[in-house]
Amino acid sequence: MIKLYDYYRSTAAYRVRIALNLKGVVYSQAPVNLRKGEQSHPDYRSLNPQCLVPTLETEDGRLLRQSLAICEYLEEVYPQPPLLPAEAIGRARVRALAQAIACDIHPLNNLRVLRYLSTALDAGNPQQSAWYHHWIHKGFEALESMLATDPQAGRYCYGDQTTLADLYLVPQVFNANRFEVDLANYRNIRRINDACLELAAFDRARPERQPGASSGEAG
Amino acid sequence: MIKLYDYYRSTAAYRVRIALNLKGVVYSQAPVNLRKGEQSHPDYRSLNPQCLVPTLETEDGRLLRQSLAICEYLEEVYPQPPLLPAEAIGRARVRALAQAIACDIHPLNNLRVLRYLSTALDAGNPQQSAWYHHWIHKGFEALESMLATDPQAGRYCYGDQTTLADLYLVPQVFNANRFEVDLANYRNIRRINDACLELAAFDRARPERQPGASSGEAG
Repeated sequence: MIKLYDYYRSTAAYRVRIALNLKGVVYSQAPVNLRKGEQSHPDYRSLNPQCLVPTLETEDGRLLRQSLAICEYLEEVYPQPPLLPAEAIGRARVRALAQAIACDIHPLNNLRVLRYLSTALDAGNPQQSAWYHHWIHKGFEALESMLATDPQAGRYCYGDQTTLADLYLVPQVFNANRFEVDLANYRNIRRINDACLELAAFDRARPERQPGASSGEAG
Repeated sequence: MIKLYDYYRSTAAYRVRIALNLKGVVYSQAPVNLRKGEQSHPDYRSLNPQCLVPTLETEDGRLLRQSLAICEYLEEVYPQPPLLPAEAIGRARVRALAQAIACDIHPLNNLRVLRYLSTALDAGNPQQSAWYHHWIHKGFEALESMLATDPQAGRYCYGDQTTLADLYLVPQVFNANRFEVDLANYRNIRRINDACLELAAFDRARPERQPGASSGEAG
């Protein structure tokens, strides 16, 4: 059985859980507690030299890293239902939306970066929060503009079928809510997020439904 | 003709130039001077709401954003020579290497982030430099480890044909050199970078060979 090394609150792992659910792939979960630093233990480092989650272990023991690469792999190996449109131009649109989140929002706001701000730059909670909010707003303003002007946007980010872009949107909205970002101005982002969460594949992937989520830890 | 909105020193644009050269696609260039803030002008914002380079305009006027999405598009529309291996597992490996750079190194070190450190967090040049070096080393240590242990690594990141991973490696090494990062410990990264730069497609994409590079501006 496919095994996913994840952490309930990791947005990168959350994307892969949605992809696996949408594809109907049965998988087991191996939680890696980022708060406790388990991602840096030698055992996990040997699986993922970047010491990041997720890592996906295939049935024959191959190790895949990076959520985008994993989702593209799932798309190739389990083509139904598709996460990308059939036409190259549509595929490029969907990938660009996903990457606007994967490359230009998320990496700036993950745990290791907030920790560096605190330890090396002496940034207190208000400055860390301002940093987080700044990059979310910068990214969401662009994303909202792309969704508002793209004639291809529909019930979801691209048309009326869920795509790779939605897999990236929903976890990022979850993360923004966790950091109490005001999303009032992002009508399309909120609308699409709500529509996605009505689907069982998205709902089952929610952080609060994962192993480890009920441990009541702070932060 | 395909038009690429780029900036000679943007590593994201550099990747796309290499891809276009490898595919033998003839294209024109429209420089967007990031130092002068041209990426935020309304004219450019209407092309790319993220106000980032590159943007690729297809022959029929479609606008594509995000370097990874653009490279995947080029791979689909101009399949020869391939930038990805034929097998899903190999494709996932190559994409993970590219994304380790695209998601976990580059976004932390680009111009807008260094500017925020300076303006909002009062970080002086030594702190900005320490920040830059920290994320390069963090990323390159993992990348070097992946390249050193992957039996598929060859003359290039994956075997003896250039792939998407090499398109990401070479611009990131250029950037690291520009910020005077000591790369002595990254034997495989340096070796592959040197091998790539012997190829005309990589050589012609070098920042110093682009329009705008000879303006002698500082920074």
